Amino acid sequence: MDYADLRESVFEANRALVREGLVTLTWGNASGADRASGVFAIKPSGVDYEALRPEDIVVLSLETGKPVRGAMKPSSDAATHLHLYRHFASVLGVVHTHSPFATAWAQAGREIPCLGTTHADHFHGPVPVVRALTSAEIRGDYEANTGAAIVESFSARGLDPLARPAALVPGHGPFAWGATVRQAVDNAVALEAVARMAVWTRVIGGDAGPLDPVLLDRHFLRKHGPGATYGQPEGGAR
Amino acid sequence: MDYADLRESVFEANRALVREGLVTLTWGNASGADRASGVFAIKPSGVDYEALRPEDIVVLSLETGKPVRGAMKPSSDAATHLHLYRHFASVLGVVHTHSPFATAWAQAGREIPCLGTTHADHFHGPVPVVRALTSAEIRGDYEANTGAAIVESFSARGLDPLARPAALVPGHGPFAWGATVRQAVDNAVALEAVARMAVWTRVIGGDAGPLDPVLLDRHFLRKHGPGATYGQPEGGAR
Amino acid sequence: MDYADLRESVFEANRALVREGLVTLTWGNASGADRASGVFAIKPSGVDYEALRPEDIVVLSLETGKPVRGAMKPSSDAATHLHLYRHFASVLGVVHTHSPFATAWAQAGREIPCLGTTHADHFHGPVPVVRALTSAEIRGDYEANTGAAIVESFSARGLDPLARPAALVPGHGPFAWGATVRQAVDNAVALEAVARMAVWTRVIGGDAGPLDPVLLDRHFLRKHGPGATYGQPEGGAR
Amino acid sequence: MDYADLRESVFEANRALVREGLVTLTWGNASGADRASGVFAIKPSGVDYEALRPEDIVVLSLETGKPVRGAMKPSSDAATHLHLYRHFASVLGVVHTHSPFATAWAQAGREIPCLGTTHADHFHGPVPVVRALTSAEIRGDYEANTGAAIVESFSARGLDPLARPAALVPGHGPFAWGATVRQAVDNAVALEAVARMAVWTRVIGGDAGPLDPVLLDRHFLRKHGPGATYGQPEGGAR
Repeated sequence: MDYADLRESVFEANRALVREGLVTLTWGNASGADRASGVFAIKPSGVDYEALRPEDIVVLSLETGKPVRGAMKPSSDAATHLHLYRHFASVLGVVHTHSPFATAWAQAGREIPCLGTTHADHFHGPVPVVRALTSAEIRGDYEANTGAAIVESFSARGLDPLARPAALVPGHGPFAWGATVRQAVDNAVALEAVARMAVWTRVIGGDAGPLDPVLLDRHFLRKHGPGATYGQPEGGAR
Repeated sequence: MDYADLRESVFEANRALVREGLVTLTWGNASGADRASGVFAIKPSGVDYEALRPEDIVVLSLETGKPVRGAMKPSSDAATHLHLYRHFASVLGVVHTHSPFATAWAQAGREIPCLGTTHADHFHGPVPVVRALTSAEIRGDYEANTGAAIVESFSARGLDPLARPAALVPGHGPFAWGATVRQAVDNAVALEAVARMAVWTRVIGGDAGPLDPVLLDRHFLRKHGPGATYGQPEGGAR
Repeated sequence: MDYADLRESVFEANRALVREGLVTLTWGNASGADRASGVFAIKPSGVDYEALRPEDIVVLSLETGKPVRGAMKPSSDAATHLHLYRHFASVLGVVHTHSPFATAWAQAGREIPCLGTTHADHFHGPVPVVRALTSAEIRGDYEANTGAAIVESFSARGLDPLARPAALVPGHGPFAWGATVRQAVDNAVALEAVARMAVWTRVIGGDAGPLDPVLLDRHFLRKHGPGATYGQPEGGAR
Repeated sequence: MDYADLRESVFEANRALVREGLVTLTWGNASGADRASGVFAIKPSGVDYEALRPEDIVVLSLETGKPVRGAMKPSSDAATHLHLYRHFASVLGVVHTHSPFATAWAQAGREIPCLGTTHADHFHGPVPVVRALTSAEIRGDYEANTGAAIVESFSARGLDPLARPAALVPGHGPFAWGATVRQAVDNAVALEAVARMAVWTRVIGGDAGPLDPVLLDRHFLRKHGPGATYGQPEGGAR
């Protein structure tokens, strides 16, 4: 098995993070999973995006977390991605960046409120901040524990990962995901855009309230779920 | 009828939105009307701007709102555009984006005050916020009702659409328009620029008052109406 | 006389304004003067920067203000430029833009304080706000009166135009100038950069005081005047 | 000796400053040292980055501070770089820019607090502000005294230059450095990014506290020192 298609899509996703302006230096990584094959593929650690080639993408087992293909060390965040794949069954793509506005919300330890339909088109409510890790969790299996804190926060609040496809790790930054690696990238792009708009909204009017819940539902459900009407029908003109 | 010229101009306008930095992902659409032919043309729904071709532009009837040309589904905002064309007789181009600063003002539910001549060159007064939709309007024919709220707000205040060629839909974002689709794009660009400048102006001096009305008139009328002196004369050197 | 060199340098300066990100749509213009020939050259009115060619640059008489070369109408701001050339004898280049941060300071009606050496490298003190025009001045020869308000403010405060090569017209935006058209462009670029830094400085610490006057002198005089040590010597390696 | 490799790496570093958006006009310079040869190489003064060629890079003696190779005048900041090389034995690359957000913190005279792991990945604590220069120091050997103030501040606080590879000179701007010129550039890029994020963090929540020290250690030490696990092993796949 060479996993060429999976690696190619993960390669493209990592390049898209740069093209969309979400990445500074090497701070960011995208991964994609192939559940039938029991693997996920992720960017290697600390490699320049300019120099990255599809064959550099590392493939790891969803069961053991060990590399099964690729000569390079996987991203240091691979254990976080793995934890999300193991516990979010509907998720097939994960993105981590330090995009500036989403990271600023994470650094402030504040959830990103849903202030408009741009947000509602992608996230069915505020983007949550997960709990802080304990000192023991930080000193221990830090990256896996980061994933565990995300999963725990979503589970405790009964959130559907695909209806709220991102989380802020306090003092750290955003993770986003989706039903495909392409959707995970789109959600990371949307997250940064709404994080930025929310800052300007607060500067303009500090008292701006959350979006009308009826409008929130209308926009989210226009793009997601069985009643979605946005985009071209599958098998349609393109 | 193939409406090739109309589709080409609408295609160019949609590409211009990207080039001017007004579009994230697929959030935005431009349309143009041909009143003699009784149609308007608009971007298809959810199609990547990169992949967009002139022949993808969908042509709809101004009378029925139904597609008359093009294999793809029109933008989900087509009903809003249609409503504006039906009620704003002087308008031949409409643009909708989620450009970040204009959207932030919409999310804050605040009109964009006229703080300078940059604003006055395009908008003969503040850029208005229209009324919020009711729950019934949101759950019903949402996109058409968005257009209706814009028209209603302009009518109630006695505003000339070409003298105030943009509106903010609260919790949503900006719509802009013009006497041509190119002018609609220029007004959307100007709107984002003045929305951004107005944020910085407020940060610098929270008490900055509106522009002197004499200066507002001087600038708007220098560029618009019978006494306009800006630009090259029609049939001139270029 | 074709004034080819003058027009070429003014053409390049106008293109540089776009490349440096100071221009939105067609909001901006650069001019250069040739005092020996008694003329100055300026961008035509409302022409796209993309389409601009050196032969489109309009040449006007410094004495009469009338075009002496070029088929197009000059920029509507030509009368402001002319006034500055007539009264600031050391100035050979003028730039007007609506660059966003400098314009925000102008809209707030506040001078840009000298908060650091970046500012001091180009401006020997705060960038002044000139007085507002009266209603009669706005309704009358508006563009020339704008130039007159700048000259009057500099004269009243005893400012040397080359030591303070920019001014903010309140509710309007910045004008910058220099001993050459290239220097005028550089000063417009520096003005926008320091205007932006000054906004962030105020956000970080509202009480940040002005730069130590000793440091202000050190930096300004390192780059300007008889004791300047910056850059390569004339006739040097390049 | 032609120092071709050293000049090439310093040339590349100076170009990288532009590519990374840290430079306006000619405000910035990078240098690199070769201690075995007793020299450092730096950008010439006031030369356009566009026109810069590797052979323009000036080589100076670490002992005398005098040029030993290159026909052009070195950057006016060469004396600051020299002082840092003389006193920070582990440093082989130095970068000075006026990047806007880092400069804004310097202008506000405030250290950049460590608000998140992005910061902790590069700086093992706040980015310090060094003491202001006295009038005598400004009027005297200003550039060398700037270096002396940096060294003195690090020495007084017992800071390891490679664990805190940047400093803010109040009212002026940032200096960054590293164990190679490439690392100095990366640290200057990281500095601007965290300076920017810190501004937005303060705007979102003015009371955001510093990062948990356990998390700070975890991130810094994951990338630096004997226990570092980030990136590919030396002599590894690439």
